[in-house]
Formats: sequence, structure tokens, C-alpha cells
Amino acid sequence: MRSSEVRDLLDVTARSDIIPLAAGAPYVKALNFRDIEKYARKIIAEDGLSAFQYGPSGGFYPLKMCLVDVLKLDGIVASPDDILITDGGQQALDLLAKIFIDPGDIIIAEVPCYVGALNAFLSYQARVETVPVDENGLQIEILEDKLSQLSREKEIKFIYTVPNFSNPSGVTLSFDRRKELVSLARRYGTLIIEDNPYGRLRFEGEHLKNLRQLDEENIIYVGTASKMFAPGLRIGWIVAPFSIREKLIHGKQAADLCSSNFTQRLAFEYFSDPRWKNTLKKFISIYKEHRDAMLGALEEHFPEEVTWSHPVGGFFTWATLPEYMNTTEMLAEAITNKVAYVPGRGFYPDGSGTNCMRLAFCTVESEQIEEGIKRLGKIIKEQMRLYRSFYRGKK
Amino acid sequence: MRSSEVRDLLDVTARSDIIPLAAGAPYVKALNFRDIEKYARKIIAEDGLSAFQYGPSGGFYPLKMCLVDVLKLDGIVASPDDILITDGGQQALDLLAKIFIDPGDIIIAEVPCYVGALNAFLSYQARVETVPVDENGLQIEILEDKLSQLSREKEIKFIYTVPNFSNPSGVTLSFDRRKELVSLARRYGTLIIEDNPYGRLRFEGEHLKNLRQLDEENIIYVGTASKMFAPGLRIGWIVAPFSIREKLIHGKQAADLCSSNFTQRLAFEYFSDPRWKNTLKKFISIYKEHRDAMLGALEEHFPEEVTWSHPVGGFFTWATLPEYMNTTEMLAEAITNKVAYVPGRGFYPDGSGTNCMRLAFCTVESEQIEEGIKRLGKIIKEQMRLYRSFYRGKK
Repeated sequence: MRSSEVRDLLDVTARSDIIPLAAGAPYVKALNFRDIEKYARKIIAEDGLSAFQYGPSGGFYPLKMCLVDVLKLDGIVASPDDILITDGGQQALDLLAKIFIDPGDIIIAEVPCYVGALNAFLSYQARVETVPVDENGLQIEILEDKLSQLSREKEIKFIYTVPNFSNPSGVTLSFDRRKELVSLARRYGTLIIEDNPYGRLRFEGEHLKNLRQLDEENIIYVGTASKMFAPGLRIGWIVAPFSIREKLIHGKQAADLCSSNFTQRLAFEYFSDPRWKNTLKKFISIYKEHRDAMLGALEEHFPEEVTWSHPVGGFFTWATLPEYMNTTEMLAEAITNKVAYVPGRGFYPDGSGTNCMRLAFCTVESEQIEEGIKRLGKIIKEQMRLYRSFYRGKK
Repeated sequence: MRSSEVRDLLDVTARSDIIPLAAGAPYVKALNFRDIEKYARKIIAEDGLSAFQYGPSGGFYPLKMCLVDVLKLDGIVASPDDILITDGGQQALDLLAKIFIDPGDIIIAEVPCYVGALNAFLSYQARVETVPVDENGLQIEILEDKLSQLSREKEIKFIYTVPNFSNPSGVTLSFDRRKELVSLARRYGTLIIEDNPYGRLRFEGEHLKNLRQLDEENIIYVGTASKMFAPGLRIGWIVAPFSIREKLIHGKQAADLCSSNFTQRLAFEYFSDPRWKNTLKKFISIYKEHRDAMLGALEEHFPEEVTWSHPVGGFFTWATLPEYMNTTEMLAEAITNKVAYVPGRGFYPDGSGTNCMRLAFCTVESEQIEEGIKRLGKIIKEQMRLYRSFYRGKK
């Protein structure tokens, strides 16, 4: 197993005056806490005996019923029985890894890749093969080469991707590539895990069809309440074919018996109240404002040798520095200057990505984002100047 | 992986008019829901931003601080940093299995064994060796033989036991055997997982020293809020040495990032309010009354060929029928007569225990317990009569 640099950093920066461009924490300030209090009181008064008891391993049925409507927003047709409730999207990935991966099994992941997914897959000793993304997501030609080469060697258990505003890259898989990806996976008899935590948080342009809309049988869809409601509940879900779901339920029983009946009921009350869509609109407009602040600040303060992604939704942008730069080493200097980011290395299973960084615009106010990026720009420019003078001196 | 007969049954009987002597569900009716509502309101009003956000993987620090005092009741000395918060005791067992067990590794479990522990260990493909309990718990001489024989073959990763009012047997490990167990484990260089969900629920006699009091270095202690507060929170904990805890925290990150910040805060408020000890007293007096009802009814309605354990705490008694009886097959007849129990077979990894049953007295009212046992007694007597007449006919 590997330590998660993201989580370790979060622990440090949470307790300080550091501008946390590292944390992928939702902007929970936008929630209506009076409504949440109302939901909690209702649950305790009317349904306390069940809310504080054990529940079915597959999840609280009324929550699954109202998730059918939430999934419809994503164009996904499911019945309550198609849905398994998990402790956040992270447990969904862990359970999928648990039922699919034996030590040494091959899976394919996009890179840079959500570090929690890498942790889950590697904790079951998967052999993680990678396919890089560009500004249109997973590079299909490279994927095809990998599939063709690896499938001669061994079965490929699944392909993992975050098609919408990916963590950490911020890029979105184009519609043409979605069709190509789905047809490639079919051709090679491989499942796809479609992880879609940010899908509803689109700032501009039209929603693209999700992979599961293109191929219901071959795609396992993972969703979460963490970004549409709150991560403190630990509520996520998997939509999967029956045969897989049965195994997942047994996995869930062995993992923790069931998710919290109380927080499942809170999620049920939230998604049953039509006002949650107003909260969603608030989230979108805040994140869009923050994204604009970050892109503007990057344009102003980062040197021209640095490039970054232009996310149309979600929480993150991904900056690529000159190849000689090392963002892991640079982090100490950043922390000294009271600003944090996540070094790129953790998002690659092979230790590459050393010249990249994840910048989160989700939880920090716009002025702080500008100040943080300004500080980082100064550090990067200074390090580039030092490198250049050292390099010139050597010649 | 294996299906959990306990959980599957629970799902069926929860929706019907069946007397659920199967369910190990706490008597949550004894909770003071007004207090819980007060805690929830306080958390949402004063600490909503953190309660609904992600938290540290190791757990909410103030909860760990107040668990230090809860652990003291069990005679266990720990600092907050020694504690890792998990999603109930079940996730504690899953994470321990995850970090210790590679496919084929040997572990030793008492039998009959908590079925959730078996599920957790088997889901990581452990080779589960068993040692039976008698009325004084784990049989130490058999354990010593096993250790001596197996340790020649391969390292034994750990010994799993529930020393107090075990699930499902209801028996308690005697003090002398506790000392012997701890010293045996030391001699053979094997860890012990001490699972203590019911420890505070003692009806009579003195609390015995826990294993961890006898050997701090070699014992991993698992506790839970499920029986002292409520299982609907999904809050448990592990007390373990530093080197193991670091691995567990990485496992927890990969499994679900962190436990719910909201339910952790509810547990914190509950255990910080001295009145929780009144609730605990209420639990104990209710369970004792139910236990008395069950033992009385067993005496009255079960035939003399059946024996059962006499628990001095906890939730369960364990009945052993004549060897020719099959409790898995008999369950259909019991369900027809609107009473449920858990067949013994699920508590053994090798499919033995077919003539045993777990009878839970925790959640059912005394009159219902008496009625349920009366119905079961009738079924057992009838089946014994049939067997005898058939057997005699054969001769």
C-alpha cells in the first residue's frame, strides 16, 4: 500500500493559515444548514428506531428510490434494485477492487489518476497500467495499443476513468472518444468503471452523454453525494449489472455490514426536497467564479513556460511546469510561503508527473485563490531563474 | 466470499411478523432520542462546516479523546493517538484482515465464530483454522496443539477471539485462560485480535481483565459504539501499536477516506454527556431481563436432550441439539411458525455446527421471547419424535 500524499497534506494544512489549493474539499458553506437541521430532527423524531439500527447491506430503499431521479439527471436509467449504497465513492472503488482484483491482475487507469482510486487498486495488489489524458481526456489510440498488447498476455479486469472534469487533470472526455472508448472496451471484453463525482458541476457547454448511457451492460457507474450534498455523510453509490451487484453486496457485508442508516436518511431527505437543485445551482456558480479567478490568476502570475488545463466543471486544474522542475521538492518552499498544492507524482503509479501540480479551486475564496497563485508564480519563477543561472554556469 | 446467513435472514425477518430471535440488533428503544436530537442540533448549528466536510482518516480527535475514558472503563490505558476510528467493529476486522492477510495465510479463530469476522477473513482468502470454545471460552489445550502443529508449517498471522459473552456462543473466557492465551500467543510470536463489542453489558459477576490489560504490545483491541450507543452511526475503534496503526490508516484511506464526520460528532456528544452511563444501565437491565426470560423459557420448553450456554452478559445464547438434527433444514419450519433463529452452520468455516442455533435475546420483548422459544421447542420435539419413530422403524 502507498500513503496518500493528498490526505496527509490535508491533515497538515487543515490546521493552519496556509491557503489550501491542495484540498479537494467541497464548499459546504453553500449548504442550507437550517434545512439539514430540519431533516435531522424529522428523522430522529419520526424514524429514530430505524435510523439508529443496523440496516440492509444494499442500502436504505427509499434513498435508492430517490437516487433513481438523481441518476436521471445524468441520463442514466436505473431501478432502485440496480443501486448499491456505499460509504462515499471511495468505498465503491474499494469494493470493486475487492471483487475484481487478485494480486497481479491487470487494470488500466487514466493518468494522472485520482489518487484514491490508485490506492484502492494497489491495496489489492493490482498491476496498474496507464494511459495518459490530453485536453480531450483518455488518449484512445494509446489505449488501443495497450489493450491490444496486454490482452495477449492476460485478461484486463477493467478500465478506470473519470470522464467529466477529472480529478486531478480537470479535463473532460470528448463525445467522440466516449463512443470509441465504449466500443473498444466491448471489443476487448473489458469492463469500464465510470467514476462521476463531478458530473453535475458543469460551468459551461452542454452535458455530454455518460458512458453508461452508451452501453448499459459493460459499464459500472460510480456516483456520490459528496459533491452534490456533503462528504461528511459518506454516501456514494454504484450502478452495476445484477451479477456484479450480488458480489458487491457480499463485499459490503464483509467490509462494514451496512452504511449508516442515519446519514442515508439525511441524504434521502435532502434529495427528496426539490430545493436541493437550488443548492446545486449555488455550488455551480461558486465553483465557476473560483475557476475564473484561478485561470485569471494563472494567466497573470505563472510564467509562459507553464501550461494548465481549462476545466469546464469540477474542482481542479492541472499545471505542467518545465520538465526539470520538481513539484514534490518545491512544496516545502510553498508551505513556507503559506500556500499548498498537491505534487503531481502521487497521481501516477510509476512516480512520473514530478513536474506537475494539482490546483484546487473548490473550497478557497477567489481573493485567496489569486493570492495563492501569485505566491506560487513567484516561487516557480524564482526556481526557474536559479535553474537557468546554474545551467548557464555549467556550460 | 461467502454469503452471510445472518444478514440475509435479517433482511427477510425485518419486514414481517416473525419473532426475530435471529437478529443481533441492539434495543435502541432504550435510547433517549430527545438527547440525540439535542446533540444533532448542536453539531449542525455550531460545527456544521466541519461536520459535513471530509475529516482526517484516523478519526475525529475529540471523539478519540473521550474514548480514552470509555476505554478506561474496560481497564484499557490508551492515548487518543493509539485509537483509530472505523465504520463499526466490522470495518475494524476488515482493515485488520486487509493489512495482515495474503491469500493462503493462516489465522486461528474460535468456533463458533462471529460470522462477520469469518466473512472479513475469508474475503481476503485466509486459511481459517479453528479452536472450539466450551463454557469457559477458547479451549487452551486444543489451541496449544494447533499452534505447535501449524507454526511448524507457516507463520500464524493472528488469533481471533471475543472473550466476553461471545457472539454467537454467549460464553466468557475465564481469567485463568486469559492469562494462558496471552502467554501462548507470546510464546508463538502471534498477535491476538480481541474483539469486545459486548464487554460493558455484563449482567452479573465481576468484570474480568481484558486481554489487552494483560499484554499491551501483542493485543489488538477492537471496540464499537454499536452496543453502547447505536449501530446506525457505524462507529467503531481499534487500539493498536503504532506500526500496525500506520498501516491501518493507509488501509482506511483506501477503503473510504474517513468515517462520517457527522456521526463521529454524534458519538462524541453522546460519550461526553455523563448521562450515557444511565443509558448503559438501562441497556444492561433490559438485556438481563430478556436473558432471564430466554433461559426460563428454554428450561420450560426445550427437551432435555438440548443444551445451551448461560451467558452472563451480551446478546446471545447458543443451543446444541442432538447430533442428528439439522438446524438449517429446520429453519423453514420455524419461519412457517413465525419465529426465526440463526442456524449454527454459518459460524463455522468448515460447515459443521449443523445441529446448533444462535438465539438472540437482545431486541425482542420478554413475552415474545417466551412465545418464540415455546414455538421452537414444539418444532424440535416434533422433529425428534419423527426421527425416533423413523429410526426405530429401521431397526
